[in-house]
Amino acid sequence: MSVLVVGSVGIDRIETTQEDRSDLLGGSASFAGLAASFHAPVSLIGIVGDDFPAHHRAVWEKRKIDLSGLQVAQGKTFRWHGRYEENMNNRHTLSTELNVFADFKPELPHAQKKLPFVLLGNIAPDLQHLVLDQMEKPKFTVADTMNLWIDIARPRLLELLPRIDMLILNDSEAALLTGESNLLRASRWLRERGPRYVAIKKGEHGCFLSGKEGAFAAPAIPLDKVLDPTGAGDTFAGGLTGYLAGQKEINLSTLAHGVLEGTLLASFAVEDFSLNRLASLSPKDLETRRKELSRLINPHP
Amino acid sequence: MSVLVVGSVGIDRIETTQEDRSDLLGGSASFAGLAASFHAPVSLIGIVGDDFPAHHRAVWEKRKIDLSGLQVAQGKTFRWHGRYEENMNNRHTLSTELNVFADFKPELPHAQKKLPFVLLGNIAPDLQHLVLDQMEKPKFTVADTMNLWIDIARPRLLELLPRIDMLILNDSEAALLTGESNLLRASRWLRERGPRYVAIKKGEHGCFLSGKEGAFAAPAIPLDKVLDPTGAGDTFAGGLTGYLAGQKEINLSTLAHGVLEGTLLASFAVEDFSLNRLASLSPKDLETRRKELSRLINPHP
Repeated sequence: MSVLVVGSVGIDRIETTQEDRSDLLGGSASFAGLAASFHAPVSLIGIVGDDFPAHHRAVWEKRKIDLSGLQVAQGKTFRWHGRYEENMNNRHTLSTELNVFADFKPELPHAQKKLPFVLLGNIAPDLQHLVLDQMEKPKFTVADTMNLWIDIARPRLLELLPRIDMLILNDSEAALLTGESNLLRASRWLRERGPRYVAIKKGEHGCFLSGKEGAFAAPAIPLDKVLDPTGAGDTFAGGLTGYLAGQKEINLSTLAHGVLEGTLLASFAVEDFSLNRLASLSPKDLETRRKELSRLINPHP
Repeated sequence: MSVLVVGSVGIDRIETTQEDRSDLLGGSASFAGLAASFHAPVSLIGIVGDDFPAHHRAVWEKRKIDLSGLQVAQGKTFRWHGRYEENMNNRHTLSTELNVFADFKPELPHAQKKLPFVLLGNIAPDLQHLVLDQMEKPKFTVADTMNLWIDIARPRLLELLPRIDMLILNDSEAALLTGESNLLRASRWLRERGPRYVAIKKGEHGCFLSGKEGAFAAPAIPLDKVLDPTGAGDTFAGGLTGYLAGQKEINLSTLAHGVLEGTLLASFAVEDFSLNRLASLSPKDLETRRKELSRLINPHP
């Protein structure tokens, strides 16, 4: 079944202690859409300016992503400039230019309103609501969020919770939103307010998934080298939602496998800048690392 | 097969934001020995003063731990006073009185020199060497350590590495010792200097085990409430080593199961002060939580 992925599309400039790279394809929908496309047909909903280069668009087209819901507006594409510290965990936003994204109103083409799986990528809760307002009873809705929205749009984010099936956020965001630093209590707090499932991401420490049937803990895949962590969370959410769209049932077991697929794709995403590594992934690359991940969590290898 | 456990034995005073408890049985050998006794016969090597109360000794006796190697010296038992912050991760040592522990020289009774499994609990590397000097070819030797020894006894700790089969330490200690914050690179650095296996503990984020055959990542068991984290690492090391002593072969798979047994026992240890929860554990308590841990890491429950 198909997945509707909505989020930001941007052009990034990213500095690490080693490199300074410009004109990179970025944004939550870019990563999440590409990741989901490894498992399901994807329709991408977003907005770009008339400066958006054809070679960026080609990255999605090559993976047969439906771009009929990608608006092209007069003006410049959203731009973000960030810098990572040596440890690759701490990052600083040096500049954000919303440009055409400032007036983004998701408008779903008729066919997209019926899609069964929805990933509300990391954008303002108002926009996430606007997408759900247009959908006709999706089978499963996943939402991602970030500290910015918890800080400036908390009421709207809380109103979103009863409308979604699963919330994805990281551990510090979960603590900020719930007031609980304990994973069990934070997850329970969130599930009591709507979503049946919650995935709390812990960066290099993996992810804690829970629902009323129980919990699943996935490690991250230890990597020798991380070039650019941008988009890892979006890739995780996209890989997870794409995987679910291919399953007959959604339950704790299929979600746990979804978390592992998200983990797998995210581990590739950070090995190069932008979507470069994801875009060049072969089925064999995926299969080799999938086996490695399976051994990593299995005490009977 | 039997396990020799050497380490400190102390009387702790522990303050949390909720409680202030005194005269608690503590020390690395106390926790590690009790944890190992759930899987194997244990001989404890350590030192106490003539003030050491019978009810503390009874905790080990109840679990049939051999105390013939526990020296009783004239003077006071080692005492430690610590305070935990609200988050239970940061702790401050308020006072340490070495007392009889200052002159501790492990002396192994004849029978103990032949024991096949050795756990060198968290004590000075000099003392860990002294124990190995007396052992007759143990089958498998595990050593635990801490930042203090990395800071003040680094050369002796490095000399210990070729003499042991497995090193256990936490992530910040691994970074301090190796200069590598990356888990893969830190583990490789350590294994190149001696131990065939390395377990890097990450507190609430679990443990990363590696050897030349591969790696295993175990989560910690998420707990609703942690009363006192003291001794969690020692309990982990004891549970792991005790488990190994009951196995025919030592390989990545039995070690992974050992890591899970250590994780399991440590999850109980932190639910009460001192060894209180471990001492009252029933086989049913263990079995129930062992199943919970198995579900937590298994995507096909």
